[in-house]
Amino acid sequence: MNTPPDSHGQRAVVLLSGGLDSATTLAIARAAGFDCHCLSIDYGQRHRAELDAAVAVASALGAAEHRVVSLSLDVFGGSALTDAAIDVPVGGVEPGIPVTYVPARNTIMLSLALAWAEVLGSKDLFVGVNAVDYSGYPDCRPEYIAAFERMARLATKAAIEGAALHVHAPLINLGKAQIIQRGAELGVDYALTVSCYQADSSGHACGVCDSCRLRRAGFVAAAVADPTRYAA
Amino acid sequence: MNTPPDSHGQRAVVLLSGGLDSATTLAIARAAGFDCHCLSIDYGQRHRAELDAAVAVASALGAAEHRVVSLSLDVFGGSALTDAAIDVPVGGVEPGIPVTYVPARNTIMLSLALAWAEVLGSKDLFVGVNAVDYSGYPDCRPEYIAAFERMARLATKAAIEGAALHVHAPLINLGKAQIIQRGAELGVDYALTVSCYQADSSGHACGVCDSCRLRRAGFVAAAVADPTRYAA
Repeated sequence: MNTPPDSHGQRAVVLLSGGLDSATTLAIARAAGFDCHCLSIDYGQRHRAELDAAVAVASALGAAEHRVVSLSLDVFGGSALTDAAIDVPVGGVEPGIPVTYVPARNTIMLSLALAWAEVLGSKDLFVGVNAVDYSGYPDCRPEYIAAFERMARLATKAAIEGAALHVHAPLINLGKAQIIQRGAELGVDYALTVSCYQADSSGHACGVCDSCRLRRAGFVAAAVADPTRYAA
Repeated sequence: MNTPPDSHGQRAVVLLSGGLDSATTLAIARAAGFDCHCLSIDYGQRHRAELDAAVAVASALGAAEHRVVSLSLDVFGGSALTDAAIDVPVGGVEPGIPVTYVPARNTIMLSLALAWAEVLGSKDLFVGVNAVDYSGYPDCRPEYIAAFERMARLATKAAIEGAALHVHAPLINLGKAQIIQRGAELGVDYALTVSCYQADSSGHACGVCDSCRLRRAGFVAAAVADPTRYAA
């Protein structure tokens, strides 16, 4: 599930949040020759600037198209990213699963990608999860991605017709610095991306949430200039 | 995945469309002692009367609560149930997968149920799929449900904390007549349910679509009076 084949002109569905990881994933899928159909999910997240970033990233990296599915995931509550009653933590990474975890998020996003892939006749899904800096999220582990792929192969018309579906997670074994180096080689403009959990409406990052800390440290470790637009 | 344990007072998430199968599934989950949290998905389906039916069914069968998640699945198109450009077939069951198939629908619905289960601390999902009268839908097969369960066990906080998740599909090996007989024993009022792909806004069934034909034949075979409200 890690190495995309040479796939000139084949359709792929790429999950694109507008953050650093998914932008890099899109660049990797493009470099492998895929015709990229990008999907963003508007699930009531606080950091709406990410969705604006996704539009800019899809355009800059030559996506074939970009669609946004709306999903009222906030009716469940349970995460600081969708539930206004839970504060986003700014005190540094704590052990265990953080309150910014959105329940079953990757399962939901990959399921929606699978639905679109079926309509498009695509057999390739790309997702920017990584297991190294995954902050304890269960649905960023390699064994989870493999299990989703096995399930997806049984779930669709394509499966019945004998076409094997692939879930590509090209960042899964990379640390943040390696992701940034790979993206920089592929020409990703990280100034367009927004990773901050509480970015302002113009996409300025807070610089203090867990996601900002991890991202900033990644640029330092990668020895790549950090183009992130931080709030004053 | 077929037989619910005795589970007095444990929380379950039950996918409830408002149709005959999901109403029966809810009755089975209630009879097993579960505290049932019912979930309906508003995915832009044409047969909106189903959602009204879900509200009535949840109340009649003593659900603990009922929530509706909105999802703009129609942005993908590809199904007669969500795409106004595709006609619902009324000419009888054709071989192969029908145009009423919604891409990855059960995967998406189970993923949303999984998200809510995680917030509720529930380890039990109920879904009313069945493999006997499944019209060729790939995501109604037992091997698909088993694969979803394996994936879900890796996907959530509960998994990391060692709690095993169960996907119950109590109808999976039953024919329509057996489902109706089981539901009738449990006191399900099928007059409240809507199965028709093109029911009118008051829930009157067309009587001619694939879903109506299968349902009507089920009541006949079960020797149970058919309380379905058909359009004149």
